[in-house]
Amino acid sequence: MTKDELFQTIQQKKSYLCIGLDSDMEQIPGHLQSKVDPAFYFNKAIVDLTHDVCVGYKINTAFYEVQGNKGWRSLEKTAGYIREKYPENFLIADVKRSDIGNTARQYAETFFSRLDFDAVTLSPYMGKDSVEPFLAYKGKWSILLGLTSNPGANDFQLTATDQPEEYLFERVIKTASQWGTTENMMFVAGATQTHYLEGIRQIIPDHFLLVPGIGAQGGNLQELSRAGLNQQGGLLVNASRSIIFSDPSKSFDVTARDQAMKINKQMERLLSEKKLLANP
Amino acid sequence: MTKDELFQTIQQKKSYLCIGLDSDMEQIPGHLQSKVDPAFYFNKAIVDLTHDVCVGYKINTAFYEVQGNKGWRSLEKTAGYIREKYPENFLIADVKRSDIGNTARQYAETFFSRLDFDAVTLSPYMGKDSVEPFLAYKGKWSILLGLTSNPGANDFQLTATDQPEEYLFERVIKTASQWGTTENMMFVAGATQTHYLEGIRQIIPDHFLLVPGIGAQGGNLQELSRAGLNQQGGLLVNASRSIIFSDPSKSFDVTARDQAMKINKQMERLLSEKKLLANP
Repeated sequence: MTKDELFQTIQQKKSYLCIGLDSDMEQIPGHLQSKVDPAFYFNKAIVDLTHDVCVGYKINTAFYEVQGNKGWRSLEKTAGYIREKYPENFLIADVKRSDIGNTARQYAETFFSRLDFDAVTLSPYMGKDSVEPFLAYKGKWSILLGLTSNPGANDFQLTATDQPEEYLFERVIKTASQWGTTENMMFVAGATQTHYLEGIRQIIPDHFLLVPGIGAQGGNLQELSRAGLNQQGGLLVNASRSIIFSDPSKSFDVTARDQAMKINKQMERLLSEKKLLANP
Repeated sequence: MTKDELFQTIQQKKSYLCIGLDSDMEQIPGHLQSKVDPAFYFNKAIVDLTHDVCVGYKINTAFYEVQGNKGWRSLEKTAGYIREKYPENFLIADVKRSDIGNTARQYAETFFSRLDFDAVTLSPYMGKDSVEPFLAYKGKWSILLGLTSNPGANDFQLTATDQPEEYLFERVIKTASQWGTTENMMFVAGATQTHYLEGIRQIIPDHFLLVPGIGAQGGNLQELSRAGLNQQGGLLVNASRSIIFSDPSKSFDVTARDQAMKINKQMERLLSEKKLLANP
């Protein structure tokens, strides 16, 4: 998917919401547990009722790997289902991998060729050659961790480098943004760190940012959007638990849609405020 | 496995070699490709002929994920086989993951509880709360990336912090070593970076180091061992491709054993030189 196509989807749907399918088996409603593949069944229900009220889905592999090879099957089926039925949705494999070239090539093949995700999340710690194999895929995206939403962001990302007034996450973004283009790289910028978003936008005005941390983690949508939106949208804001697990009853999917629509109302207003809607 | 037990294994086997089961399907000998589960068959043959000439195995998940849920089955079977038949071998899941707490807990359950690995490799970029869920498992190990063996190590790991004469990887090791103990944490120190090993040993004299990069990546065993061995061994040196893929014929497993034994001869001499053998 190109950057233009992604922006068009944002304009059409008046939303930059990405829904995280962190489909923890212990939190999937009880009445689904007897299904042959509860995780897929759950995801399918959520996706069928939300595909038109979000612009993408983020699948966190941890919640599937924990179910072993069955979990991988659920992940493959979910990705395949979204790809086939709702191809306009941007599909992110949230894997936060990083490894040397020959290993990175395997991961790239897995998530880009075999499973046909649009994007993967990557940890930048191992540097350029751990990211390059992903950048070689045309139309696919590498989303590098910049500043994350968790308390541990303080341990290294927010430590000072030897350059005046520079945090490590800023050096990472400055350096890594040179490895690719605004057409194949994005950065993770945590929603709990809104006050740093303006600084990030000065370094990379034109890149898309993936912002996790609203909902369960407490980030503020209005603040982060005002700081993060650019002239092509430039934001994907992810919510996982607060959408998919807000209702343990049989109407979990209807409630998920309601939750997404609530966020979208805010997003439409924020897009309009920035004059980003084609037909306001 | 405790640190004492690991050292005893090193003394008994006169080796600190870890064999990397990077079982790339494209490199598995042709005559195995018709088996029901070629990767498992290949691994089993390698393990059956090398379990007594190494102290551990490192399974890189990338080479299994690329085969989808079948690959996960091969990974599970391989880990289960080593656990059951050769439990004295230290079993590492080379996953280089990092994520927020609720996700990290899933990964820890996957690799420590379900698959019963002794250790996982982790990227430190997301800080303490991305590592803590792993440290909660008694007798299990977190192996954090410190200084890696690839060219990309120069991009961030070898950049200067705001402290005099301090590289980022040194700050990572100083800080992260405080999160756990020498009984539940190790660090990755690349074999191609031997000249930094002495510095690492000054920061963490007592921690075990996992050293990848000999063999295909060209690291020098003698140099790295002289700098890295401590009074409890303190080193696990990994070789993957140079052992498991050195012979594409039907005798690939015999050749793998020969390759491991060649490395062990050097290791025995180096252990003896440091007076680390119980029965020299």
